[in-house]
Amino acid sequence: MSDIDIISQYREQFVTHLEGRIQLGEPKNLYEPVQYILGLGGKRLRPILTLMTAEVFGGKAKEAMDAALAVEMFHNFSLVHDDIMDDAPLRRGKTTVHEKWDISTGILSGDAMLILSYQFFESYPGDMYVELTKLYSKTAIEVCEGQQYDVDFETRDDVTIPEYLKMIEYKTSVLVAAAMKMGAIVAKASQKDAEAIYEFGRNLGIAFQLQDDYLDAFGDPKTFGKQVGGDIMENKKTYLYLKSLENASKDDQDGLLHLYSIKPEDSTAKVEAVKTIFKESGAVEETKKAIQDFTQKAFDALAETGLHEKNKALLQQFGEGLMERTV
Amino acid sequence: MSDIDIISQYREQFVTHLEGRIQLGEPKNLYEPVQYILGLGGKRLRPILTLMTAEVFGGKAKEAMDAALAVEMFHNFSLVHDDIMDDAPLRRGKTTVHEKWDISTGILSGDAMLILSYQFFESYPGDMYVELTKLYSKTAIEVCEGQQYDVDFETRDDVTIPEYLKMIEYKTSVLVAAAMKMGAIVAKASQKDAEAIYEFGRNLGIAFQLQDDYLDAFGDPKTFGKQVGGDIMENKKTYLYLKSLENASKDDQDGLLHLYSIKPEDSTAKVEAVKTIFKESGAVEETKKAIQDFTQKAFDALAETGLHEKNKALLQQFGEGLMERTV
Repeated sequence: MSDIDIISQYREQFVTHLEGRIQLGEPKNLYEPVQYILGLGGKRLRPILTLMTAEVFGGKAKEAMDAALAVEMFHNFSLVHDDIMDDAPLRRGKTTVHEKWDISTGILSGDAMLILSYQFFESYPGDMYVELTKLYSKTAIEVCEGQQYDVDFETRDDVTIPEYLKMIEYKTSVLVAAAMKMGAIVAKASQKDAEAIYEFGRNLGIAFQLQDDYLDAFGDPKTFGKQVGGDIMENKKTYLYLKSLENASKDDQDGLLHLYSIKPEDSTAKVEAVKTIFKESGAVEETKKAIQDFTQKAFDALAETGLHEKNKALLQQFGEGLMERTV
Repeated sequence: MSDIDIISQYREQFVTHLEGRIQLGEPKNLYEPVQYILGLGGKRLRPILTLMTAEVFGGKAKEAMDAALAVEMFHNFSLVHDDIMDDAPLRRGKTTVHEKWDISTGILSGDAMLILSYQFFESYPGDMYVELTKLYSKTAIEVCEGQQYDVDFETRDDVTIPEYLKMIEYKTSVLVAAAMKMGAIVAKASQKDAEAIYEFGRNLGIAFQLQDDYLDAFGDPKTFGKQVGGDIMENKKTYLYLKSLENASKDDQDGLLHLYSIKPEDSTAKVEAVKTIFKESGAVEETKKAIQDFTQKAFDALAETGLHEKNKALLQQFGEGLMERTV
């Protein structure tokens, strides 16, 4: 089977499990939004990583299902609450929970999802439950911190590159890392392997987010899921922006600061001007370099594991596929 | 020492513990609201119950501190999110979190509090951690369900008495019950004693909430903490209201339905008319009876425990004091 077939199979098995486990309980107004958001689909990247990691470490995907579900539930909880904070009307092309119901429903259903996700770990034996939930709490609080940093950065003009990297690590990559480590825990991998696979996921997650920054400006509108140039229109302080400010000539710095202080109705000229500065400052090259570096760190961590070569190759191919956005 | 002295001592010890444990981490905008809401005070009823229960079962209050803190943290999490849903400007006489900061901060800080509360259990040994967190998740999801029922009831005109009792049980009393059971778990009480003390707390919590319904209409404005008549002004479907609808003459039923469909600017006449129907329908007597019944059930559960008589007496006095609102 090709990697893509394997991934599709995991996705299918996971969705079947999810549909069986997420029953519509009472009160309906609490649980309907939970079913709704989890039913909107998405790539199911995180739970697939949990299942895949469990299997490469000799466990069974079936045994990792509830951990995968907890991770997917947490991810969706964060989407519901983030969409309220961002006042977002759409999620995966469908109405957001707080738009379809109301803000109260979004808050309360999100809370319920966070608690339910802890309960999914209850199907594991005591020691494993302890290890999984502690990792889960640590990860969850980091995601909240990452989200707060992201909010804070909107109104700060002194964000540094290390601060930015910490923000994307917390907001995005620790959940990817934890999703994989949970698979390792369920498969009873060694502590060393579990840590190494966490590092693989963490670095790959950072690389993925940096690539998202890059593609948001320079991606192909046909294949990039979101509107190309969206970050620039929103004056979002991405890696490209921060690196440009660091490297650009004084004139270009001033130009960039000005461009990031306006939101013209027709943003075409602004987007082009910003992209030119991104390129001329060398920020594009540095961003590509950073993506490569974090991807390499991920692969180095993978090499540290005691996995069979064919499993290392499987995960490396998955990582490469992710960076090429084919999975 | 008198009971009140004991309670004050527990409160003081708990607040000292809380202040030591709730450090101001980064990002400040996430953790400042957590410190703020937990610093607003309140009776600290739930954590005191955890400490007291641990000690009557032969444990040490000190050992129960982190469980007590988790319970208080959860209670405050629910206040922060409920205040957003209710658009409440004040909490304990001070500005609510979402008013002092904004809705996003209220949502995210609340989320962080829910996760942090799970982390407080990490100071217990594995088996105890498992038992405490499972009870905690079960309780937390019930509180969310209770809150949703409460929201649903606002727009429903067919709420039954059993439904209402389930709502107040979930929204209020299961957390009181769990607070006590956690004290029992930490003190390594028997399963039977832990269950009995849970039933004590659960029934006492229901009695307390029914008494709150009663006092909201008939309490002494000098000693009742909230505005007397507030529930009637808000057309809140309390036990008094539901019992009146069940028992009143057809004319009084129609009168009550009408009165509960209006919100006059000067509510004096409305409040008096509603209170007259509450009295004449026999609902007041039935509410008092229900309060007595649930209080008695609580004391019966207490009698089932293997506690020393003096400790049973201590908890019974605490319960009685609570019903007379002296603690």
